[in-house]
Amino acid sequence: MTLPWAVVLLSGGLDSCVTAAMARKEFQPAFLHLNYGQRTALRELKSFHDIADFYGVTNRLVVSMEYLAAIGGSSLTDARIPVSQANLTARTIPTSYVPFRNANMLSVAVSWAEVIGAHAVFIGAVEEDSSGYPDCRKEFYDAFNTVITKGTKPSTHVRVVTPVIGMAKRDIVSTGIELGAPLHLTWSCYQREDTACGVCDSCALRLRAFSQAGVEDAIPYAVRPKYE
Amino acid sequence: MTLPWAVVLLSGGLDSCVTAAMARKEFQPAFLHLNYGQRTALRELKSFHDIADFYGVTNRLVVSMEYLAAIGGSSLTDARIPVSQANLTARTIPTSYVPFRNANMLSVAVSWAEVIGAHAVFIGAVEEDSSGYPDCRKEFYDAFNTVITKGTKPSTHVRVVTPVIGMAKRDIVSTGIELGAPLHLTWSCYQREDTACGVCDSCALRLRAFSQAGVEDAIPYAVRPKYE
Repeated sequence: MTLPWAVVLLSGGLDSCVTAAMARKEFQPAFLHLNYGQRTALRELKSFHDIADFYGVTNRLVVSMEYLAAIGGSSLTDARIPVSQANLTARTIPTSYVPFRNANMLSVAVSWAEVIGAHAVFIGAVEEDSSGYPDCRKEFYDAFNTVITKGTKPSTHVRVVTPVIGMAKRDIVSTGIELGAPLHLTWSCYQREDTACGVCDSCALRLRAFSQAGVEDAIPYAVRPKYE
Repeated sequence: MTLPWAVVLLSGGLDSCVTAAMARKEFQPAFLHLNYGQRTALRELKSFHDIADFYGVTNRLVVSMEYLAAIGGSSLTDARIPVSQANLTARTIPTSYVPFRNANMLSVAVSWAEVIGAHAVFIGAVEEDSSGYPDCRKEFYDAFNTVITKGTKPSTHVRVVTPVIGMAKRDIVSTGIELGAPLHLTWSCYQREDTACGVCDSCALRLRAFSQAGVEDAIPYAVRPKYE
C-alpha cells in the first residue's frame, strides 16, 4: 500500500524533527526547508539535509524567504536587534518573533502540497513552550485550515497537522527517542553555528527539556547551564 | 491630520492600480510588489514603479517569491504549460492559476504591515471576473482576516481590504477614470511584454471591460479583438 504524501516543514530543530518522525507513520514525507535570513541559517540547512539523509527522503525543497529579513522587525533576522536572553517565565513576546512568519511558511507549504497532491502539511509548532509567539497557537492553525479550504481548488484536500502543538518539550524529546528520531542531528540555537550558545531562549528550552526527560543532549554547547 | 499607513499590493495591473487609487483616499500607501517568476515579471515591475512615481509613493518594497515558479503547477510560471486562450464563459479553473498564490502574497504583506504599523492591507482581487481562481473569493479573505487576528501580536490591528472584489471589471475601469488613476501605466497581459497579446484571458477581460465602460484602452496591443 502506498502512503499518501505529506509536506513536512523541517527547520532542522528538535520539534520539526520529531514532527517528521511522527508524520512518517502515516505519510510519505516531502521535506520543505525555509531560509528566512535568520542568523543560523547555514547551520539549520545542514541539519535539514542531515535529517533528510538519515530518513532517505529525496523529495526535498529549499526555499529562500529572505524578504522576511528585509522586512525586519525580529532579532532573528535583524543584527541590530539583540537576541533576548532566556527568560522562561516571561509572558511577553520575545524579540526573536518574526512577524507572521508561520503564515508565510504555511503558504509556501500549501502551494507545494497542492502541486504534488499531498494530503497534509506537518508543522512542529509548540504552543506552551514557544515563548508566546502568536502564530504558534492551535487557534491560528484552525483558522489557517479554513483559509486552505477556501483558497485552494475543490479537488485539493490539504490540512495542516500540528502533532506536537499541545506537548511539553520534555515529551517531545521522549517521543523523539521512542521513535528513533535523529535528535543528535538537530540544531536549536538562535545565536551560534559552531557550538550552541546555551543561553538564548531556544537553547534554554532545549536544555531544560532534555534535563526533564532525563536524557543527555548529544550536541555541543559553549556553556551548558542547568535549567530546571 | 496624518493618515494611517496601509500596505497596497500593486502588481502593476488594472485592478491593483484602481485599488491603490481607492486606498489613497483614507490611507498613506506603502506599495508592495511581488515577483513570482511569472512570464511578464519585468514588464509588471516597470508598471509598479511607473504607478508609484505617478503617485509619489517612496515607501516601496519589491519581494522575490520566485519559489512559486520552482514549485510550478501554473502556466504563468511554468513555460511547459500553455497559457489558456480566453474563454470568458468557462467555469473551470484556468491553467494560469498559481496554487495558493494570494495566501503567499497576503502573508508577506501582513508581515510588512505588522513591522511598519500599518492598519490595512489592500489587494485588488476581483471575484466575478477573475476566471474562477479559488483565492479571489470574498470568503477566502474573510477567513484570512481571522488568521491575521490569531497570528499577529495583540497590539497589531491589520485587516485585509478588497475594495474591488464585488465590482464588475467595467466598473473598475470607470472608477479608475473617476479617481484619475493612471490606467495607461498598467499592464495586464500574461503572455507578452512589448505589446499586449490581446488574446490571453487577462487581455480579453481587460479589453471587454474598457469596451463596456466606453473608454479607449491606451496601451498597445498586437491584435485587438472585439470582446462583448
